[in-house]
Formats: sequence, C-alpha cells, structure tokens
Amino acid sequence: MLQSQLFTKTRKEAPTDEVAKNAQLLIRAGYIHKEMAGVYAYLPLGLRVLNNIEKIIREEMNAIGGQELQLTALQDKLLWEKTNRWEDEKVDIWFKTNIKNGGETGLGITHEEPLTRIMTEYVSSYRDLPILAYQFQIKFRNETRAKSGIMRGREFLMKDLYSFARTEDEHKELYDKARHAYISIFKRLGLGSLTYVTFASGGIFSEFSEEFQTLSDAGEDTVYVDEEKGVAINKEVLTDENLNKLGLSKDSLVEKKSIESGNIFNLGTNFSETLGLKYKDEKGKTHPVIMGSYGIGLGRVMGTIAEVLSDDAGLIWPATVAPFQVHLLTLGDHPDIVKQAEDLKNSLESDGVSVLWDDRDSGPGEKFADADLLGLPLRIVLSSKTMEAGNIEIKKRTEEKEFYITEQEAFSGKIKDIISEM
Amino acid sequence: MLQSQLFTKTRKEAPTDEVAKNAQLLIRAGYIHKEMAGVYAYLPLGLRVLNNIEKIIREEMNAIGGQELQLTALQDKLLWEKTNRWEDEKVDIWFKTNIKNGGETGLGITHEEPLTRIMTEYVSSYRDLPILAYQFQIKFRNETRAKSGIMRGREFLMKDLYSFARTEDEHKELYDKARHAYISIFKRLGLGSLTYVTFASGGIFSEFSEEFQTLSDAGEDTVYVDEEKGVAINKEVLTDENLNKLGLSKDSLVEKKSIESGNIFNLGTNFSETLGLKYKDEKGKTHPVIMGSYGIGLGRVMGTIAEVLSDDAGLIWPATVAPFQVHLLTLGDHPDIVKQAEDLKNSLESDGVSVLWDDRDSGPGEKFADADLLGLPLRIVLSSKTMEAGNIEIKKRTEEKEFYITEQEAFSGKIKDIISEM
Repeated sequence: MLQSQLFTKTRKEAPTDEVAKNAQLLIRAGYIHKEMAGVYAYLPLGLRVLNNIEKIIREEMNAIGGQELQLTALQDKLLWEKTNRWEDEKVDIWFKTNIKNGGETGLGITHEEPLTRIMTEYVSSYRDLPILAYQFQIKFRNETRAKSGIMRGREFLMKDLYSFARTEDEHKELYDKARHAYISIFKRLGLGSLTYVTFASGGIFSEFSEEFQTLSDAGEDTVYVDEEKGVAINKEVLTDENLNKLGLSKDSLVEKKSIESGNIFNLGTNFSETLGLKYKDEKGKTHPVIMGSYGIGLGRVMGTIAEVLSDDAGLIWPATVAPFQVHLLTLGDHPDIVKQAEDLKNSLESDGVSVLWDDRDSGPGEKFADADLLGLPLRIVLSSKTMEAGNIEIKKRTEEKEFYITEQEAFSGKIKDIISEM
Repeated sequence: MLQSQLFTKTRKEAPTDEVAKNAQLLIRAGYIHKEMAGVYAYLPLGLRVLNNIEKIIREEMNAIGGQELQLTALQDKLLWEKTNRWEDEKVDIWFKTNIKNGGETGLGITHEEPLTRIMTEYVSSYRDLPILAYQFQIKFRNETRAKSGIMRGREFLMKDLYSFARTEDEHKELYDKARHAYISIFKRLGLGSLTYVTFASGGIFSEFSEEFQTLSDAGEDTVYVDEEKGVAINKEVLTDENLNKLGLSKDSLVEKKSIESGNIFNLGTNFSETLGLKYKDEKGKTHPVIMGSYGIGLGRVMGTIAEVLSDDAGLIWPATVAPFQVHLLTLGDHPDIVKQAEDLKNSLESDGVSVLWDDRDSGPGEKFADADLLGLPLRIVLSSKTMEAGNIEIKKRTEEKEFYITEQEAFSGKIKDIISEM
C-alpha cells in the first residue's frame, strides 16, 4: 500500500485523556480511534493487526477440529434467567435494552448459554459428540473502570471456544488440545516467552481454572512465577495448601504484574444440566454433557503487544501480526528511486511479503520517526546514496543498526528470508 | 470437511413460528439458528456463506481503493445529538442502554456520524482527499416487524462504504465507482440478472437515491421495471414528473415485488457541515467535504439468494457463495469407495475446490435429500456402480439429470472446470 493513500496520519502527542500506554501509542500511530471511554474503533492499520491476530487464532482453532460459527450480540433474557445470570445482582456488567414491541434484551457478555441451547437441538446421542465450536465476536461488558486502552474495553472482539464432551477423560483431552493450541497461539503472536500458564480460582465450576498471563508492568493482575517450571499461580489462590497441591514451592516464586491474555475454564455439567444438554450412551443411559470454555480477547492481545513490545520511539510489531511486514521508505523523488521502489514493492508482494511504501513528499526525519512509531518489523530505505552503492538499506525495528544487502539479493528472496527468521 | 464431523444436522420440518421461506430453509438445512425474533446466529455452514459474500464485497471495495476499518457498536449520544438523529422522535429504531458509571449510549444503526468525526482528525487540506472507507459491521435496529428471516433483522452484518470528496465532480466519480462495484458484486453473487438499479426517494439529502432491488415475490417493496433499459423506479417516486426527468415511459414499466439488497446515497454536505469536516483548497479557501454512503446487508443478500434461487427440495447456492462447492456422496462403505473418495477430496482441495464429503452411515435416500436441501452446486456420487463403470456421477443442483465423467477426467481438473463455468 502507498502511505500517501492511507487516510490516517501519525500525531506527535497522545490525547491527554488517555492514560494507558497501548492506547497512547496506537492512537498516535493512527491504528485506533477512541469513540468513548473503553470503546475504540480500529482504523485501517489497526484492523490489519486485529485480522492477523484473528488469522493465527483461527488456524489453531481449526487445527484442533474447532467449527467456526457466529452467535448473536442480542441475548434472550429468558435463557439467561434459567442459569441465574440475568439479574444485575448476579452479573453486574450487562448492557440491557428494551425491544420496541415488548420485552427486554441484553448485549452478550459471553456465550455459554446460547451455544448450549443450540447444542440441545443437535446433540442427543453419544455419536454426536465430542464437539469443539468457536467464534470471533464482539462482547459487551458494562465495566465501571475502562482506563486500560484496548486491554479492557466495554466493547471488544473475543475468540471464544467451547468444548462438549461425553466423559471426564474426553473433556480432559479436549481441554489439553485447547491448552496446547493456546500455547502455540501466544508463541506465534510473539508473546510466548512472556506468557505463563497460571493457576487461578476455578470459580463455581471447578477447583482451578487456568489463565494465560503475560508479564507486564501495565498488568492489573499479580502472579507468582516459577520461571524454571514455566508456570505461575495467581495471587487469589496463593495458599500453602494450593502450592502443595500444585507441587510448587514458595521460595522459587517471583512476584510479577501481568495481563490476563487468555483463560480456559472447566464448566463441568453446570450449563448442560440447567439447560438440558444431554446424550444417550451406547447402552441408552442419559448423561449431561461436560463442557469447557476458552477465551482470548483480540483487542487485549493487541494492546498487550503494544505495551510489552514497544519502546520510547513507538510500536514494535512481531512479523506475524504487523499490519505490513516491510516499511519501504524512499528519500527524494528521483525517477530511478521511484522506479526501484515500485519494482521492489512488486517483487516483494509477489513473494507474499506485505509492503507499506512511504511515498509521501516528506523529509527523511519525518519518515524515520513515523517508521519507528508505526513499528513495522523491517525498514528498507532507498535513496540516492543506496542507488549509487547498488545496495539496499535494511533495519530491523528491534535493532539499533541498519545493514545492507545488494540490490540483486533484495530482488531474489533475501528479504523474505530475513522476515521468516525474525 | 467430513459431514460426519459437522455438528449441525438437517431437519424435515421448519419451526412453526418461522414464516419466511429463507429462514425456514436455512434453519432446516442447519445454516442458521433463531435466537429471538429478528436475531439469528450463523452456524458453520451459514457462516461460510456469509464469509464468501463478505470476500466478494471486500475484493470489489478494495478494487476501487476502499480502505477497510471497523467502527464501534456503542455510540456516543452527544455526537448523534449534534446531527439531530438521537431522539426517538427523530429516529425510532435505536436500542439505547445505560453506561454504569453515568450516561446513555446506543447501538449503531449506521455510521455516518462517527466516521465523519474521525475524518475531522485526518482531513484538513485538499491533499487529504478523496477518501473511500468501508467496514463490515453488525448494525442494530429496533424493528417492530421482524418476520422476514435474515432479510430484516434486529441485528445484522452490513458492509457500509463512505465517500469523501472535494467537489461535486469528484463525488460523482466516487459515486459511479461505488455504483459499478455494486453491479459487479450482485453479478458475482449470482443475483445480477434479477437485480435492478432503482431510482428512489433521495430523502432529505438529494432528489433521488439509488437502490439495488432484487426481484422476488418475497419482497416488501414494489418497483416498476423497464426491462429493456435495465432500470427500475420505486413506487414512492413514481410520478409523471419524475418519469419525465428520468427519461422513462409508464407504458414500458412492469410492476414487480422486490427486495432492497443494496442502496447508495448522496449525502451532500449535510454531515460535514454539521460536524465540521472541511478542507482548504489550493488557494486556502475552506469548503465542506461532499459525502456519499453505500450499504449492503450481508444477511439480507444471503436471505435473498435463499428466497430467489431455491426450489421445493431446498437451497441452491451459486458456486461463488456456496459453503462448499462440491458435495461428495459415498454410497456404501466399501474400502475402495472410501479410498477413491479420500483421493478425490484431496485432489479437488489441492485444486482449490472446497468439498463437503457425506461420509455418514446413512442410506442413499437420506443423502440425496440432504444434498438437495443443503444446495451445494455440484453433487458427486461414488458408489459400487460408478466404481465398476470406472466413472464418476455428477449432478448440478440446478439441473434434473446427472451425467458422468471418467475417473481420469475427475482427477485431472475437469471438475474445477465445470465449476468455473457455472
């Protein structure tokens, strides 16, 4: 894409009402726009990041046999009354609204209830199970506190996966599949080394749940990390008894701030018993279905990356999620430079490398500063200097120093190789 | 995909509370689920159709230089008060709700206001224009009447494109681009021959707007079609004066029922003047930006296809939007048949042809009936009969008679060719 065509622009100052670093950087770089507190629009660059995150998650969900669907935002009050999650006294984050010709509805905070009800229409025999089903959908939560930028929104895109199993063993199998998929996802998102599987309170359904906690000073959570074992435990369940159960020792734990970037829950038969989701086994005996749910907030992941992988100059996107992989800067508008830039852009794009070409009529200082702020993984500079030398200047966003490859290398797959190794 | 893995199943009877043919068929075939009146979830097959429609629209929007973004569902009351579209007396389809720590918000019915406001942050000079920006987003409309299945929902996915131009001429150019893109879209969706560009009331912004009306007895609109000229006029603007202006003659018009499957509006400077979206021209003079908006409801398009392209036996999807292009039926479970099915599925998939393999342990009658109901464009049958003859049985969903190709042809691109020609 030509940067001159992109309607967004960078700005020097963050809005004064924005306290979270992720929102400050993302707004300055033109990735997002704040509509209201906790409500953000995704502008073209931001949407490309969100879509890349979505693509990675979708691939991993499909790889474990997940079937994608899309449930609704508007929720059936009668259904949620059955599970006792409608009343504000029980769940205090509903946005509720009235249907014009009668009745009340609410905006989906999560989707266990509607999906369980759908499954009652399709599941009756052991032959119909197991099932893994997931969606990407906007959730709405009427949060009192919404000051963490896109890490805690009142409206946010979430991937939620639900598992439906016949037996505890089968549930465990699905749960482990989902857990492994999550580990792959965070690795591919560039957050692998900072993200710990963390024991947390299981809520009303089971003793423990697991959270995926990404270490960050901007986090709202406190976790105790066993770096050697690569696991952590949430503050709320940090008791001697639990440490004992989990085989952890207090001495080897380090306290850290963290962001909950994903979570997985054992739901047991709570929803299936209440909503009548059951199956007949081989002998004709009826059992409730055993469920799990597994969530990742995509905005939260994007905000987390912006928090933990940025520096003073701006954002730093992993190549897997960057809106474009290459930021091609031309200095000056000599026809030879423009021609080379066009050729290089075409060559890279036909190699499957995405390119943002800063073709604007701006000075080098502005272009370099914007490149740092936008944070694309690889910066390539074409100038009269590089033209004369017959080479191409390359700089990784994560490194201080630029380096050079020959023009010929640039046109024969070298850049793609550099990106693959990042 | 293996049909035995798909969690949805077909059902013989439509739900009794569903009066619209599109919803009856789509529910029977397991494409959608009715959550509440006017609120439908998209199950795996339905979501695949919706995604295919989205892909076609996205390609056409990108081809005219549209920049994709994603605005928010929750709307800022103060913004909509400025354009006088907040009060229920002015716009009576809002779902409104309260923010817990104060204030009221509404669910986006359309997005002229928020996008215009965003543009005020990025547009100041003639150099910043023109802009085409679009999104796919869930709209919410508190409709009193919601009995048309997915053709008129309270919650529905919409593509909305907005144009921002400097001059009337430039606006006309963008408008024509969008108009042509819409014509391509409806052609690619398989609705080209049934869809007419239709003159309609321009509302408060201009004399006429244009609608894309798809002829169907299930339509809520009445249009008068000039089949020779390939245009139509909406009932609401059918006056002698208007016919004269548009160069149409009453005698050549035929009255038809139709579904409004897309619309395009001249917005003039209404929003830009109210919200302060202006630019300085080359001479430093300030002008308001001239806007247009262009909508297509994706659920409505899908519902329209289900209405107009189905028959008594079920759905009939064009190859461009079908959830899978090939429905591969194996009759019996002889290892040779299963092996051939596996090989053919792999061969087709590596050719880019999507395949749903009915590998279920069901009889031929059930498989044939389900294939008709699901409505995939090409049905392929492998049985002991075809194995013996060394051929493959093929039937187009739109035709009565099956035909045969040799096994060798099937494995060397013939099936892909047949689909491309559909």
